Amino acid sequence: MHRIAQIGAGRMGSVHLKNAALNPRLDLAFLVDPRLDVSEIAASVGAQVATLDKVLADDSVEGVIVASSTDAHLEQALACLAAGKAVFCEKPLDLDAGRLKAFEAQLARPAAPLFVAFNRRFDPHFQALRARIKGGEIGELETVQIVNHDPAAPPAHFLPTSGGLFKDFTIHDFDMAAWLMPDPFVEVFAWASCLVDPAIAEVGDVDTARVMLRDARGRICVISNTRRSGCGYDQRIEAFGSKGMANVGDVVQDAVQVWREDGAKGAPLQPGFMSRYADAYRGEMDHFADILAGEAQPETGYAASVASLALAEAAAKSAKTGQPVRL
Amino acid sequence: MHRIAQIGAGRMGSVHLKNAALNPRLDLAFLVDPRLDVSEIAASVGAQVATLDKVLADDSVEGVIVASSTDAHLEQALACLAAGKAVFCEKPLDLDAGRLKAFEAQLARPAAPLFVAFNRRFDPHFQALRARIKGGEIGELETVQIVNHDPAAPPAHFLPTSGGLFKDFTIHDFDMAAWLMPDPFVEVFAWASCLVDPAIAEVGDVDTARVMLRDARGRICVISNTRRSGCGYDQRIEAFGSKGMANVGDVVQDAVQVWREDGAKGAPLQPGFMSRYADAYRGEMDHFADILAGEAQPETGYAASVASLALAEAAAKSAKTGQPVRL
Amino acid sequence: MHRIAQIGAGRMGSVHLKNAALNPRLDLAFLVDPRLDVSEIAASVGAQVATLDKVLADDSVEGVIVASSTDAHLEQALACLAAGKAVFCEKPLDLDAGRLKAFEAQLARPAAPLFVAFNRRFDPHFQALRARIKGGEIGELETVQIVNHDPAAPPAHFLPTSGGLFKDFTIHDFDMAAWLMPDPFVEVFAWASCLVDPAIAEVGDVDTARVMLRDARGRICVISNTRRSGCGYDQRIEAFGSKGMANVGDVVQDAVQVWREDGAKGAPLQPGFMSRYADAYRGEMDHFADILAGEAQPETGYAASVASLALAEAAAKSAKTGQPVRL
Amino acid sequence: MHRIAQIGAGRMGSVHLKNAALNPRLDLAFLVDPRLDVSEIAASVGAQVATLDKVLADDSVEGVIVASSTDAHLEQALACLAAGKAVFCEKPLDLDAGRLKAFEAQLARPAAPLFVAFNRRFDPHFQALRARIKGGEIGELETVQIVNHDPAAPPAHFLPTSGGLFKDFTIHDFDMAAWLMPDPFVEVFAWASCLVDPAIAEVGDVDTARVMLRDARGRICVISNTRRSGCGYDQRIEAFGSKGMANVGDVVQDAVQVWREDGAKGAPLQPGFMSRYADAYRGEMDHFADILAGEAQPETGYAASVASLALAEAAAKSAKTGQPVRL
Repeated sequence: MHRIAQIGAGRMGSVHLKNAALNPRLDLAFLVDPRLDVSEIAASVGAQVATLDKVLADDSVEGVIVASSTDAHLEQALACLAAGKAVFCEKPLDLDAGRLKAFEAQLARPAAPLFVAFNRRFDPHFQALRARIKGGEIGELETVQIVNHDPAAPPAHFLPTSGGLFKDFTIHDFDMAAWLMPDPFVEVFAWASCLVDPAIAEVGDVDTARVMLRDARGRICVISNTRRSGCGYDQRIEAFGSKGMANVGDVVQDAVQVWREDGAKGAPLQPGFMSRYADAYRGEMDHFADILAGEAQPETGYAASVASLALAEAAAKSAKTGQPVRL
Repeated sequence: MHRIAQIGAGRMGSVHLKNAALNPRLDLAFLVDPRLDVSEIAASVGAQVATLDKVLADDSVEGVIVASSTDAHLEQALACLAAGKAVFCEKPLDLDAGRLKAFEAQLARPAAPLFVAFNRRFDPHFQALRARIKGGEIGELETVQIVNHDPAAPPAHFLPTSGGLFKDFTIHDFDMAAWLMPDPFVEVFAWASCLVDPAIAEVGDVDTARVMLRDARGRICVISNTRRSGCGYDQRIEAFGSKGMANVGDVVQDAVQVWREDGAKGAPLQPGFMSRYADAYRGEMDHFADILAGEAQPETGYAASVASLALAEAAAKSAKTGQPVRL
Repeated sequence: MHRIAQIGAGRMGSVHLKNAALNPRLDLAFLVDPRLDVSEIAASVGAQVATLDKVLADDSVEGVIVASSTDAHLEQALACLAAGKAVFCEKPLDLDAGRLKAFEAQLARPAAPLFVAFNRRFDPHFQALRARIKGGEIGELETVQIVNHDPAAPPAHFLPTSGGLFKDFTIHDFDMAAWLMPDPFVEVFAWASCLVDPAIAEVGDVDTARVMLRDARGRICVISNTRRSGCGYDQRIEAFGSKGMANVGDVVQDAVQVWREDGAKGAPLQPGFMSRYADAYRGEMDHFADILAGEAQPETGYAASVASLALAEAAAKSAKTGQPVRL
Repeated sequence: MHRIAQIGAGRMGSVHLKNAALNPRLDLAFLVDPRLDVSEIAASVGAQVATLDKVLADDSVEGVIVASSTDAHLEQALACLAAGKAVFCEKPLDLDAGRLKAFEAQLARPAAPLFVAFNRRFDPHFQALRARIKGGEIGELETVQIVNHDPAAPPAHFLPTSGGLFKDFTIHDFDMAAWLMPDPFVEVFAWASCLVDPAIAEVGDVDTARVMLRDARGRICVISNTRRSGCGYDQRIEAFGSKGMANVGDVVQDAVQVWREDGAKGAPLQPGFMSRYADAYRGEMDHFADILAGEAQPETGYAASVASLALAEAAAKSAKTGQPVRL
């Protein structure tokens, strides 16, 4: 059992809290949340409420889950690393690539393991897809199509602190693209529109986008985004190779189909990321346990954070200027 | 081009008429229908209206499609065979196994080829299924499940002349079972109910049935029937073998799916036999052209007719007595 | 938190042990296993090894999970109930309907809640199917088709104590049939064969069966069983009603499809009951927590056990005599 | 019956020839092919071999199918129109938008109906998709994704006269995009690579592309192309709207699935355009019969030809310059 603490018990924090509590290899000792009264939540998982300082000073704590608000991630992660605690940081590590680079020394070669949790990499379906591509089942990979459509747009007033569509949302797809395709991307092109809610345009953001990435050999990845699918959480990937195609289809809520005069109706798509990626979040926590046990290096950390952020910034620039951006 | 005639221009007759007219190897010269004025129909396919006597006396006519009412099939087929004409007889050849046996000499070793058209054998999907079973893809075949569900029950007053559910409807499934499974069946068990329309019970028929057939080794086929599926024409077969399963799923009207909040909706099933088995009916006509050209022996004739009728009679007896029937 | 104990840490026991340990409303205090050294297993879930007597004498223990070998279920369940402990008993409660009836007083109106765990009723897919049927989506339910095919037959020497195919395996389907269809069954017909492994016949059992059940109105359920599907764990239900059909399809291992020249290949079926019914086993444990909290009555207990056992005995008799059996 | 002639009996010509011969409303009287001896082919469909001059001079001929080589389409179509014959012209009318515009007077307001056959518009699946979009089933249409992947690249030496990927192949997708989306496109961006066969690059063409189109409101269409899918003829469209998504999936060769230990395998995709679009080609011919009967105006003619060619030229320019192109 590895003794750990968690910072933050908000929306993503509650997901990680439950998985940490249920993970048989982790002992969740402390819950830190400077902004909320989390005593009841802490009690429900058998943890104590504590301050971050106390956690950092406690030598029995081996690792810390950073699941606070995005703007606190970097500072808290740096503090934990400095104290020699392994870090599980909810993505993103930070929204500003320049700021990340300023701390490159502490983040790229950290004093303790730094794991930035990109959940898609832990989804069993995407892992199976990648294994089949790597196994040569579709020959040489040539192009990829990623569909990442959210069920419904957040209220527009939440968006100004999000970093914008590309950093907040497409960031997952940039990471997937890099994870699936063999070579680095050299160019980005993006179109972005506001088709869902005019209030989103008013706060300077977009809600619908298509992004293209290409590598030096001309292999292309296309990313499709919308903030509102109208049909649940649409999460698919298609990979095209020299010998065929492999894809991950949508995951539906149950295996029931009802056939009537007017056709067959299947179950709805998963309603959102919590249910669609429930296994992935558990997988992240297992990975953190592996890291604490010295059995794994972090799948994603500083390098993956910087790489996806660079693609997000290039996409934002392309969407704004209307021109392709070379990396 | 083989010169042919057709008897009957009713529901099934019109299907065959069109396929005969469009078949590049057949020259449909005459249309015979003692009960209807078919001059306009005949003109539409470039055929002349004629009497059966005239057709039988015309040496240029090589074959005759018998698509009249069921009760006329046997007599007309016998007359055509006696005149040396190859016969394409819409199923059934007759509803009475005893009567068929009385003409065994003329039917089992006929003077000209006798093809009784069991359409399922010419369906490309079922043919593909059979090819894969024969090719060993599921190992040794052990059990089969046939679903044959009609969209909507016919008016009850049509049923008394139909021969009853087993002879009129399940007959197709008995033929499929024999076609797919390697050994003859030795026992039949059937339950039949009237769940769809009480008027069907009033005329002495049933509308819902489950029939089980088994061979001497204990391999089992289950047939599922209803006169009213409530969801279109449900036509499926599952074959279970020592190394897996092969199945033919339902054929839907188009490849469109619509995803909304409440789930994904696909197109309806085919509405009935005319659309579901359109390719099969064309295939039957091609087979008749092959027979006329001397390139094929009839896929099904007297033997298949007698065999499926025997199963139908056994099933009817089992349903009536509540006991299994040994063949 | 409800303090509980578990008897048995074998194959099914280990499933329940993990779910009990992870259930936030249950405190698994003791593990009893008279036949194995379970100290390490107990430690892994934070439980103490104890004797059944100690558990029964401990007033703090509210409930007991009976997951021992089948032949011990009844005696242990009775002892627990007599001690006032709520019981979660892995199915079957017993293999002998007569013996159950001998204890009807203690079992049908037990001193503490008795839950006999039929896992299918807790499968989210089958629950969704039932909800849609109950919701009237397919009109009035008329017939049901249940496919329950195991991946691979157990070694024949395990079978003599199993109770035979119908009591050991089809028992799930009998319970599903009763759960889905509105009226009691009045007649059973079964054919059973040994097609998979001759050694199964040598020990007096069968490996392949088709069972038909019907109610007084003529509504029919067909059950399809094999001990070896050749293609994983094939678990499907189709329900046919007056306005259409609803079905639960197979659950596959992942959502990946690979398209190549020779067709599209999907992921394998779930390899067995542990993965296919993982959610159902968790659901059973939640239900036990509800029972302990006084928030639910046991979904299934003595009555369901006796009912499904009666169908199993009737099916076995039908298969042996070749005759239908009236209930 | 409308008396018609056909020019050309090559690959596409043979498709139209058969459909014309089988169409009950058309009388295919003449076959013109200046380059081949087509006497046998003509005889097989009951047509006479003739010169184009003879056809043009024959007042009984109401229409002409132009299915010659692409470089002859425009001149022959103009000659037929000048002679008052309705024209069914295999796409493209011409590969050069400038040349088409030079004949705008004769083509945009032709002396007889001019139908340029874009086959996708007559595919029943795409028609059903469009009907559901128009019917409001997915709310307001926002974005479209078109996948058009050929099974295998043609020999590179055929490509120089093809007009290049965008004019030869993507042209279908440009027409589909315009057909599905409500507003004209205002900007095009394309990336194109040579990933399939270096010989294609050597003749100055590309084999893999992604094209994006957008309209003034910011609605986006993405087109995916490859000359070699490795898995048959992959033809799909997805349409995303404010209330959900509608898509046309791939059409497979049969409805058989085979389940084995390693997963379920479905039938291959259609091998190419002849089988995938067989219904569409028949639909085109029906449309031509409607035009000849005065019951329909041509679905596509000069305007659609110019529009799709303009998009193709813009895409080619974008791919070459690396910059988006405003229309």
